[in-house]
Amino acid sequence: MSNQVYKVVELVGSSEESVTKAIDNAIAKAAATIRHLGWFEVVQVRGQVADGKVGQYQVTMKAGFRLED
Amino acid sequence: MSNQVYKVVELVGSSEESVTKAIDNAIAKAAATIRHLGWFEVVQVRGQVADGKVGQYQVTMKAGFRLED
Amino acid sequence: MSNQVYKVVELVGSSEESVTKAIDNAIAKAAATIRHLGWFEVVQVRGQVADGKVGQYQVTMKAGFRLED
Amino acid sequence: MSNQVYKVVELVGSSEESVTKAIDNAIAKAAATIRHLGWFEVVQVRGQVADGKVGQYQVTMKAGFRLED
Amino acid sequence: MSNQVYKVVELVGSSEESVTKAIDNAIAKAAATIRHLGWFEVVQVRGQVADGKVGQYQVTMKAGFRLED
Amino acid sequence: MSNQVYKVVELVGSSEESVTKAIDNAIAKAAATIRHLGWFEVVQVRGQVADGKVGQYQVTMKAGFRLED
Amino acid sequence: MSNQVYKVVELVGSSEESVTKAIDNAIAKAAATIRHLGWFEVVQVRGQVADGKVGQYQVTMKAGFRLED
Amino acid sequence: MSNQVYKVVELVGSSEESVTKAIDNAIAKAAATIRHLGWFEVVQVRGQVADGKVGQYQVTMKAGFRLED
Amino acid sequence: MSNQVYKVVELVGSSEESVTKAIDNAIAKAAATIRHLGWFEVVQVRGQVADGKVGQYQVTMKAGFRLED
Amino acid sequence: MSNQVYKVVELVGSSEESVTKAIDNAIAKAAATIRHLGWFEVVQVRGQVADGKVGQYQVTMKAGFRLED
Amino acid sequence: MSNQVYKVVELVGSSEESVTKAIDNAIAKAAATIRHLGWFEVVQVRGQVADGKVGQYQVTMKAGFRLED
Amino acid sequence: MSNQVYKVVELVGSSEESVTKAIDNAIAKAAATIRHLGWFEVVQVRGQVADGKVGQYQVTMKAGFRLED
Repeated sequence: MSNQVYKVVELVGSSEESVTKAIDNAIAKAAATIRHLGWFEVVQVRGQVADGKVGQYQVTMKAGFRLED
Repeated sequence: MSNQVYKVVELVGSSEESVTKAIDNAIAKAAATIRHLGWFEVVQVRGQVADGKVGQYQVTMKAGFRLED
Repeated sequence: MSNQVYKVVELVGSSEESVTKAIDNAIAKAAATIRHLGWFEVVQVRGQVADGKVGQYQVTMKAGFRLED
Repeated sequence: MSNQVYKVVELVGSSEESVTKAIDNAIAKAAATIRHLGWFEVVQVRGQVADGKVGQYQVTMKAGFRLED
Repeated sequence: MSNQVYKVVELVGSSEESVTKAIDNAIAKAAATIRHLGWFEVVQVRGQVADGKVGQYQVTMKAGFRLED
Repeated sequence: MSNQVYKVVELVGSSEESVTKAIDNAIAKAAATIRHLGWFEVVQVRGQVADGKVGQYQVTMKAGFRLED
Repeated sequence: MSNQVYKVVELVGSSEESVTKAIDNAIAKAAATIRHLGWFEVVQVRGQVADGKVGQYQVTMKAGFRLED
Repeated sequence: MSNQVYKVVELVGSSEESVTKAIDNAIAKAAATIRHLGWFEVVQVRGQVADGKVGQYQVTMKAGFRLED
Repeated sequence: MSNQVYKVVELVGSSEESVTKAIDNAIAKAAATIRHLGWFEVVQVRGQVADGKVGQYQVTMKAGFRLED
Repeated sequence: MSNQVYKVVELVGSSEESVTKAIDNAIAKAAATIRHLGWFEVVQVRGQVADGKVGQYQVTMKAGFRLED
Repeated sequence: MSNQVYKVVELVGSSEESVTKAIDNAIAKAAATIRHLGWFEVVQVRGQVADGKVGQYQVTMKAGFRLED
Repeated sequence: MSNQVYKVVELVGSSEESVTKAIDNAIAKAAATIRHLGWFEVVQVRGQVADGKVGQYQVTMKAGFRLED
């Protein structure tokens, strides 16, 4: 374990299907541009209602990645 | 965007299946009597244990709706 | 309703599949050694990222059980 | 355990005697108009001072009740 | 100071002008249907951005009123 | 309602009898030296254990008073 | 003051009489099996409602004790 | 940057006009008796309702000042 | 409502005039370089004191924007 | 990454020397009886004052360990 | 354990060397004018950056002392 | 004091030696690529345990810097 430094970014993933899908969507999107993505932490779960049922699950999350030397 | 006013109510949805189902159940119930329901926010996830496994997922959530003029 | 006393323990369940499975895993594990397990409450949802997608969902939760007389 | 939905309301009970009496007063008042009242949770304890001593204990609490089908 | 009971409701006021106006709008709307409205407390200040500037200030607040005997 | 300014101080009251007595003790002590004491708010309830039972209830609280012109 | 280490456990005490009794019940129960119990801290006060009045006060608390060398 | 020590006091400013005015009133009052007042931080925004509209904005804030050597 | 992903950044806006102006300044600055800026949420209101009155209002806020596909 | 379950315990470490030493003391003590201790998280830093200076640093922390299959 | 009352003050200690030194500086300063200083609790750790490294550690803390009879 | 805007980023610094070193490492790393870095605030202190003692201190912190005009 050396003295690495990590950066944490905040993301909001959304999905019409489930809370888990919203998390997965945000991680997939972030991983497309961020290297060394290592962990995430859910900050809040919200959603939109449309036609009397949940239209979109929205998960705010923090995601951390190691900064390169 | 005019100067609308919204009201927020607190609900607890439950489900024997999943966290998402508990959210869906509460929204469906609320939508049956509240018009203009627009969004929700999860406040807490709890549950009951029965026979050594989760018997019920309980999701406390806030749900907001626009007040009519 | 008599004057019972309960103890609360903190657990972290993990799953490669979903948030709900992580909860289920922790409850099943705890129920194997704790009697009278009654309820749980989610404290935090985190996870690990591997190969650009979620590799593990981790749910920190409190679980309560009644102490025997 | 079926898939019931509960509503949560926020109340402030007050009493010149004690914190417990303030809780009791709010629950008694709520129970007079709300059916299926099931649980409460204390959010805050405040009070007014008069003539150099506590004149009123005020307890903000949430109270939950099952919505009928 | 007798043993009064109060109810607290959660509202979101909005305004295109300022944070204060958003508070005022919610209170005016609530006062039109609620008697004995006594106090409010700001819970959150949010807003929408449109055309590169704030399009709407949104203030979530709790408002308390005395229940009649 | 003019534009008054209040100061808030933090106190810890203690009692061997009850939580309420601990509050009362702190308010009585504060009122002996502070004029215009108007309200209090409980921040935390703690206590010491001695000989297998509660030896002292300790209530941390904020107390507010109006500053004179 | 040497370099002692303490452990903290979470308990829920209940009482049909009062908040203070619920605290006392939990401490008495814990002291029966834990040595060197030294302090407690209230985390949450909840309760059950039965027949339109409080049927049980429930106090979640942390209790600390010194670990023996 | 030497090793200075600061004290933080808690104040509640009020105004019939706006949130900002309530902050300004508290700072002006505090500055009349406290030297080296350096910064403030808003803790809570509340208010009183009178005649169906906001009668007083109340801002609880912390204010810090350097202690003299 | 498709499965969009948003990013959230944290900003501190400042103004010598008012809390609202501090929010406006941060949004204007952010909008100059960020596309699809959609909403903001106030995290904290602080300020500097100079010559016995508020010299600068500082508003810490989160601002969210949609990531392009 | 399989579906492991972890337990989290709360400890208070103390030291007459420094905050870091208080953490180290608690971990060393816990490691003497707990296998698979993996991580810790600081919850609170407190201390006692004696003779006008810090006599003891006290660090409350959570420590997690993997439960064996 | 008699029914003592304590007062709690908030301080910010600073140091160019370490977090611990910042705590020590604040306690030493407070002890010079406050009698019966008994405990402290860290509220926040901040700092200033100068020339690309930490120029000052700042620790906000609460310190409690017994009021004389 | 003009109307500057600042950005805040979240970092995790690590060190095998101490909490302070973990802060220093993160600031040094950030300062290598960010201009006008001005302040930081500790959000959380965690760590890894290896061979029965602390193997790595990890400090999550926010760091703020002024945006250029």
